[in-house]
Amino acid sequence: MRFAKGHGTENDFVILPDPEGGLDLTASQVAALCDRRAGIGGDGVLRVVRTKALGESLPPGAESAEGCEWFMDYRNADGSIAEMCGNGVRVFARYLVATGLVAAGVFEVGTRAGARRVTVEDDGEITVDMGPVRFLGEGGAVLADGPVRGSRISVGNPHLACAVSRPVAEVDLGRAPVLDREAFPDGANVEVYRVLEPGTLEMRVYERGSAETRSCGTGIVAAAAAADAAAGAGAPAVWRVRVPGGECVVTLDAGDARLRGPAVIVAEGDVHLAK
Amino acid sequence: MRFAKGHGTENDFVILPDPEGGLDLTASQVAALCDRRAGIGGDGVLRVVRTKALGESLPPGAESAEGCEWFMDYRNADGSIAEMCGNGVRVFARYLVATGLVAAGVFEVGTRAGARRVTVEDDGEITVDMGPVRFLGEGGAVLADGPVRGSRISVGNPHLACAVSRPVAEVDLGRAPVLDREAFPDGANVEVYRVLEPGTLEMRVYERGSAETRSCGTGIVAAAAAADAAAGAGAPAVWRVRVPGGECVVTLDAGDARLRGPAVIVAEGDVHLAK
Repeated sequence: MRFAKGHGTENDFVILPDPEGGLDLTASQVAALCDRRAGIGGDGVLRVVRTKALGESLPPGAESAEGCEWFMDYRNADGSIAEMCGNGVRVFARYLVATGLVAAGVFEVGTRAGARRVTVEDDGEITVDMGPVRFLGEGGAVLADGPVRGSRISVGNPHLACAVSRPVAEVDLGRAPVLDREAFPDGANVEVYRVLEPGTLEMRVYERGSAETRSCGTGIVAAAAAADAAAGAGAPAVWRVRVPGGECVVTLDAGDARLRGPAVIVAEGDVHLAK
Repeated sequence: MRFAKGHGTENDFVILPDPEGGLDLTASQVAALCDRRAGIGGDGVLRVVRTKALGESLPPGAESAEGCEWFMDYRNADGSIAEMCGNGVRVFARYLVATGLVAAGVFEVGTRAGARRVTVEDDGEITVDMGPVRFLGEGGAVLADGPVRGSRISVGNPHLACAVSRPVAEVDLGRAPVLDREAFPDGANVEVYRVLEPGTLEMRVYERGSAETRSCGTGIVAAAAAADAAAGAGAPAVWRVRVPGGECVVTLDAGDARLRGPAVIVAEGDVHLAK
């Protein structure tokens, strides 16, 4: 099986080219590919398939993806299906351009959350339309070293974005945050962030069902939106967000967010797994 | 740069074919290759180089490797140089055979610790001569959940192999063991093991300067030797050792050890890193 490996701010993916949709990818195959010791290793798999090759299997909610030439079939590392991944879309777009499947510039990528507009910038960074950001009120969580409060935000998936006054490196994210179940029936990613100067913040994230990660696209958007709301009307609508795996830029515009950041392909080759 | 990735009981390696010794591999390149998110990912790098291509750079102590056609230039994930790696030699040997550089059967691999005899068994498993096992007396360590005592053993590198009475899965290896500095001036890998039945034990290992790993070749040998010594004269000289990453078999013979276990190549391709 051909593969590539790439990452966006160290959120990394195994990319499987499958233009004609011939791969019948099982959950256990995905898990084996993402196994960091017995496989290739990655936070997820990006299957690169022509939307028309999906045929009738285009999932509900993804109707707007129908006109896209390429569809990002994203799977979590445990083999489960996920709708969208902000860092994953950038890596997906980088792969399309690097392999000549799409010309650089502006194009749309199909995802389970619908079509996403992608722009390959002149400097090589990639901007992705992340869709609407919704504020759902206040919320709290208990971290390993104490309680935090912040904004409940949906970027398609649920977040709790919490401002902290100390450097985020000092926050203990070694244990899963304990969330109020009523406010977060499906759990949430928890971000801790600190504004360094107007328009710049640093952030760390604990992803639900997982652990702390080096970067999370929707979490970066949620933290920028929370910081922007707290800063009030005169705030910049552009936020530079530093995460352990690198730096992204979020642009907030009439309730919608765009995420800009790096994406690189590190390797490509053939993989052969026993299972 | 061409690469392959393989593992032995989930101790995994980036393999770099460099028959003519043209690669000038820096520590930062090794670290970038072994980075599990921004690179390929691995516990170390195995450069595959002809011994004669090393020329005058054959290190002291490796004189017996001079007659070996192939030399395993092993680097730790941080870029530092290591003498030997029991799981790494198996993966190295698998690569040589899988790529047709060596015919299956019995052959020698050059390492910084000298020549190591390798046997590719009929069932595909690979046996490596690990050299002498030396007992250095008793010793102790304090783990996260309490003190342990065991045997100080050298298998080229220093170990403390400690029998425990509970299942090894219940031992807390989440923190670096605290060792008596006088007994372990260079630190040590700490193994906890439990004999399941005569000739079979389960084991976990905390590797010095690192963390818990899925497997450690010399640690497997140390635990088997400690269990064999404790079992007394009637003990089997063959020990089956279960580690989190799989299972190996240790044969103890007149003070020397042989380690037998699986080794697989999972992928191969081209890697291109910015640094």
